[in-house]
Amino acid sequence: MLGHFNIEKPLIQAPMAGVTTPAFVIASCEAGVLGSIGAGYLNGEDTREFIQAVKKGTDQPFAVNLFIQQQPQIDIVVLQEARVALQPIYEQLQIEPVQTVVSKDVYHDQLQVVIDEKVPICSFTFGLPTAEDIAKLKEANIYLIGTATTVDEAIAVEKAGLDAVVIQGSEAGGHRGTFTEPLQLINLQTLLQEVKGKVEIPIIAAGGIMTAQDVETAMSLGACAVQVGTALLVANECEIPPLYKESILTAQPATTTLTKAFTGKYARGMKNDFTEQLRGAVIAPYPLQHHLTVAIRKESVKQQNPQFAAFWMGENSQHAKEGTINQIVNRLLST
Amino acid sequence: MLGHFNIEKPLIQAPMAGVTTPAFVIASCEAGVLGSIGAGYLNGEDTREFIQAVKKGTDQPFAVNLFIQQQPQIDIVVLQEARVALQPIYEQLQIEPVQTVVSKDVYHDQLQVVIDEKVPICSFTFGLPTAEDIAKLKEANIYLIGTATTVDEAIAVEKAGLDAVVIQGSEAGGHRGTFTEPLQLINLQTLLQEVKGKVEIPIIAAGGIMTAQDVETAMSLGACAVQVGTALLVANECEIPPLYKESILTAQPATTTLTKAFTGKYARGMKNDFTEQLRGAVIAPYPLQHHLTVAIRKESVKQQNPQFAAFWMGENSQHAKEGTINQIVNRLLST
Repeated sequence: MLGHFNIEKPLIQAPMAGVTTPAFVIASCEAGVLGSIGAGYLNGEDTREFIQAVKKGTDQPFAVNLFIQQQPQIDIVVLQEARVALQPIYEQLQIEPVQTVVSKDVYHDQLQVVIDEKVPICSFTFGLPTAEDIAKLKEANIYLIGTATTVDEAIAVEKAGLDAVVIQGSEAGGHRGTFTEPLQLINLQTLLQEVKGKVEIPIIAAGGIMTAQDVETAMSLGACAVQVGTALLVANECEIPPLYKESILTAQPATTTLTKAFTGKYARGMKNDFTEQLRGAVIAPYPLQHHLTVAIRKESVKQQNPQFAAFWMGENSQHAKEGTINQIVNRLLST
Repeated sequence: MLGHFNIEKPLIQAPMAGVTTPAFVIASCEAGVLGSIGAGYLNGEDTREFIQAVKKGTDQPFAVNLFIQQQPQIDIVVLQEARVALQPIYEQLQIEPVQTVVSKDVYHDQLQVVIDEKVPICSFTFGLPTAEDIAKLKEANIYLIGTATTVDEAIAVEKAGLDAVVIQGSEAGGHRGTFTEPLQLINLQTLLQEVKGKVEIPIIAAGGIMTAQDVETAMSLGACAVQVGTALLVANECEIPPLYKESILTAQPATTTLTKAFTGKYARGMKNDFTEQLRGAVIAPYPLQHHLTVAIRKESVKQQNPQFAAFWMGENSQHAKEGTINQIVNRLLST
């Protein structure tokens, strides 16, 4: 399905930054799907260690996903207001308010690691690598996948010379991969129909894919593979907190919301006290808001309280069903 | 004096970021010394344009100086306090208080430009490139110069594989190149004596070199060349504001001070109301303080008021004498 890779099943385990662990990626690869390392929050060295751990555990190809990151403009007043908006939550959870944020470029180090480690496949979120970086990656024989949330973004991915494109519908859990203005929320079916015929590179469908019917529909609309996140979050091999799995398994049709409150970029996850309390508040730009809230999210999980945790999940989460990765994948491909 | 370069005179025009212009660098090269582009505050694209402008104006070799930059930790309280400390000055100059700072990685783009443009010589301030970057630069046949303010830093420069080292005495105008803790202020003669025999790579002496006697002393202490900033600032070809030149030409022995107040890193420049009012104030880390104060410095010059401008200059500035670059260089080498 993707270049010359011999991946048994046309399914990609979504690169969920902060969620994927080596064991989970290895289990995905061994189940015959494409495992992906969500490296978005890792520095170069941690990315290298993760890759090496996956290589030790499987001979199958795997992907690394990198966040293309703009260094944010730091508005002192905005930053101060964003921090003040979080103050009641720091107090409620009885944690030290965060006062230091970092805006560090990890991307260049990660890129070097991906090349050094001869990673078979590299995917990108939030934008496109530069022409120079694409040339370097191709020279290293790395298969490149972009992420698009609109037709124009899909065309830009192809034009930049990437090998395949993930078409991310508005149903998708986690961050919108959006890299052009304004944010558009187009559901997967519509977007697949719009993209069809506009690009020649392989299309991977993503966003709210929870059932065999969803997979079949995506394939019939031109996708050569599907990318699945939420459906695999409840897999036995997935190492997220039990509280997170429970939240998915008990999800209702209107469980999710789109919010910038956790990281500063739009992402879809479980609606909770945090997302509702921060509605209308000043939010620092990505990734500064991420740094302001990371302690809140960790503590919320530690206190077994789902109300301040970032439980990313897509629409249709109510269809998630437990099992091994193998069982879940087989259910999804059982047509 | 430096590798195989055919530079007529053993003198380097110091890469003064924010001061050097293409015309000035070209004039230095054409005067038979090594011209240097101070690229510290430029982004990749501006660095490329500067380099191409210099290439158009001279066939002589030239250097580009890059700042090795750590992305700063952004402490919201510190940033807020640093901004409040500057408030009276914003008001006095009647300018809009700065509220937005940027912490952008330009270094990686600059490095690529230096390689693409086959720049003959590249020097570094505030630290050392990574081993990988050094390998890339060497593969591109670029002569590499580090900056050291202590013996240990000089040894580190040699160990990293750079080709030469600038020994920066405490007299030097502009930023201390320091990259190890704690800040040490060692005068040039002492530092040259300490370094002698500790490194085998060519030594370039910098810091307060204003007379032929200074040059001779530096050479007798083991330097193969000298790097000169302040002495050239008053050259006819140097495009700094007349107010700045006047401040150098009227300098007294105790004119300069070492301050972090302008940029967040220690630098030597003219003592004025700004440096004295900010004494003891909270200063944001480099380069955030730079962004907080850049409008103040520009406006100060615009108002013909030297009291809030960053007029970098070394000790011994009182010895500066007007003339063409040629005349100044000939005076310095007239032994």
